[in-house]
Amino acid sequence: MPTQPDTLDDLLQILGDIYENRLPFNQVLGLHIISLEPDLVEVAFDMTDSLIGNYVQGSLHGGVISSVLDTVGGLTATAGMIQKKVGCTKEEIAQNIAKVGTIDLRVDYLRPGKGRSFTSSASIMRIGKKVAVTRMELHNNHGRLIAVGTGTYLIA
Amino acid sequence: MPTQPDTLDDLLQILGDIYENRLPFNQVLGLHIISLEPDLVEVAFDMTDSLIGNYVQGSLHGGVISSVLDTVGGLTATAGMIQKKVGCTKEEIAQNIAKVGTIDLRVDYLRPGKGRSFTSSASIMRIGKKVAVTRMELHNNHGRLIAVGTGTYLIA
Amino acid sequence: MPTQPDTLDDLLQILGDIYENRLPFNQVLGLHIISLEPDLVEVAFDMTDSLIGNYVQGSLHGGVISSVLDTVGGLTATAGMIQKKVGCTKEEIAQNIAKVGTIDLRVDYLRPGKGRSFTSSASIMRIGKKVAVTRMELHNNHGRLIAVGTGTYLIA
Amino acid sequence: MPTQPDTLDDLLQILGDIYENRLPFNQVLGLHIISLEPDLVEVAFDMTDSLIGNYVQGSLHGGVISSVLDTVGGLTATAGMIQKKVGCTKEEIAQNIAKVGTIDLRVDYLRPGKGRSFTSSASIMRIGKKVAVTRMELHNNHGRLIAVGTGTYLIA
Repeated sequence: MPTQPDTLDDLLQILGDIYENRLPFNQVLGLHIISLEPDLVEVAFDMTDSLIGNYVQGSLHGGVISSVLDTVGGLTATAGMIQKKVGCTKEEIAQNIAKVGTIDLRVDYLRPGKGRSFTSSASIMRIGKKVAVTRMELHNNHGRLIAVGTGTYLIA
Repeated sequence: MPTQPDTLDDLLQILGDIYENRLPFNQVLGLHIISLEPDLVEVAFDMTDSLIGNYVQGSLHGGVISSVLDTVGGLTATAGMIQKKVGCTKEEIAQNIAKVGTIDLRVDYLRPGKGRSFTSSASIMRIGKKVAVTRMELHNNHGRLIAVGTGTYLIA
Repeated sequence: MPTQPDTLDDLLQILGDIYENRLPFNQVLGLHIISLEPDLVEVAFDMTDSLIGNYVQGSLHGGVISSVLDTVGGLTATAGMIQKKVGCTKEEIAQNIAKVGTIDLRVDYLRPGKGRSFTSSASIMRIGKKVAVTRMELHNNHGRLIAVGTGTYLIA
Repeated sequence: MPTQPDTLDDLLQILGDIYENRLPFNQVLGLHIISLEPDLVEVAFDMTDSLIGNYVQGSLHGGVISSVLDTVGGLTATAGMIQKKVGCTKEEIAQNIAKVGTIDLRVDYLRPGKGRSFTSSASIMRIGKKVAVTRMELHNNHGRLIAVGTGTYLIA
């Protein structure tokens, strides 16, 4: 009996599982996915002592911010790639996901990263066969914009 | 009897101590300082499971790379600032260090972050009264260039 | 009899005059100002043969795009600076304008620069005593987004 | 009688001719090619009144600088692409050249663009099948480093 083909939801679930459970550094950051749809990708994480970069202000390390922006940008670029591949097998998708890589990243730090928790979202600015460009934002739990970024990703 | 004024070496030692021991996220990254002089800033860290970002290749998370580049760039900008402040007290220097912040960061990812250990160095491209721009590199233990970056820092 | 102090509108008019009439390269680009208020800065220019960079597509040179984005970003950063200086004399403002400089610029090219005319606008993302960061966009006459950019400016 | 295949030198000559003679905005900038080999790409141009962006300092417009860096980066990426295509016909090469486009560009402005003439060179940091990343520099006639940049290019 033929199995049903994988839907976009099935394939995005693979992606979410990889990002949340199989990338150790994302667990160091405490990232969890709030939304993972091609039009709306959002992740969240809580402030913890280990994420501090400024010992006087008690604010996020700039590297935490760049890490989260790179992650949510990559997640968005990958979701956009997967959307074009509905019909491929899960194995093919997993292989394509493993090949996605950041080409370059720019981060603009707008305010000190203070807060109890943070959310980061991204949207696609350009996507072609080989390259995706995404725009990312990081807000704290008061809705203040902490940082923005732009990432260019190699997709397959 | 008057005490001797602090030398540049004394002041840079404060900076090194803050970066290695008082910034929790630098300890998550496992960063230790190899050299901290205005002309030669270099940090190193070992690959560990928690720094992995690509579960198939076993390579560094892009966020680890951006974090390290931001850190070594900030260290270099701060060392450059301190060099201009010889004669200030340790308390003044500590206050100035706490105010240094990244304005923006660009990272170019050139090769997968594979290796047993990594070193990152930076140099100053521009330094004024308020802003420093630095150029950073990350190499693996085989001497392969993994990533480069540029950071713009607010100094005081 | 004391003269009336200069209003923000007076001071912005000086800025607009400098950008449109005293910066030769802006005339090469054919830039004219549509709006120059701290909350809404917009410039426009027409396609001409001399601005072509791709001889097959007949589209704008990437350097025209980066030039326009840098210009509208600088105009916006400068207008933001002037807003804080109401009460200064015109001479002081002119001196401050001459000292504004771009620290760094990032441009993301999203679509070929095709069109009969183009508009570019910018907004301030961060402004302090010494540094302003702006976000810029370029659209063609069909409302298509051609490019976006981020600029970091030294202000005085 | 079969014709001799085109050598790399033949193909690079096509590229140089397009950049110098068929891209109008490069003529506005007054760019001429000093060297065009995969390992050494260098262009030069003279200061003229029309390139001025700061009316007090008499220095280059930031957009001239970003334009030149984008151009020399694109020239270098394209030369790198052509090197892999020796054996293709001139027509194929011309088509591939027309498809090269800048994905993104970062420019760091280090010193005012003062001088009688300027040279700009670039080198390849990363080149794959679809994307090239280059590093660019601009010096004045006194050998002072005016600006550096990084460009990411789509190649075919």
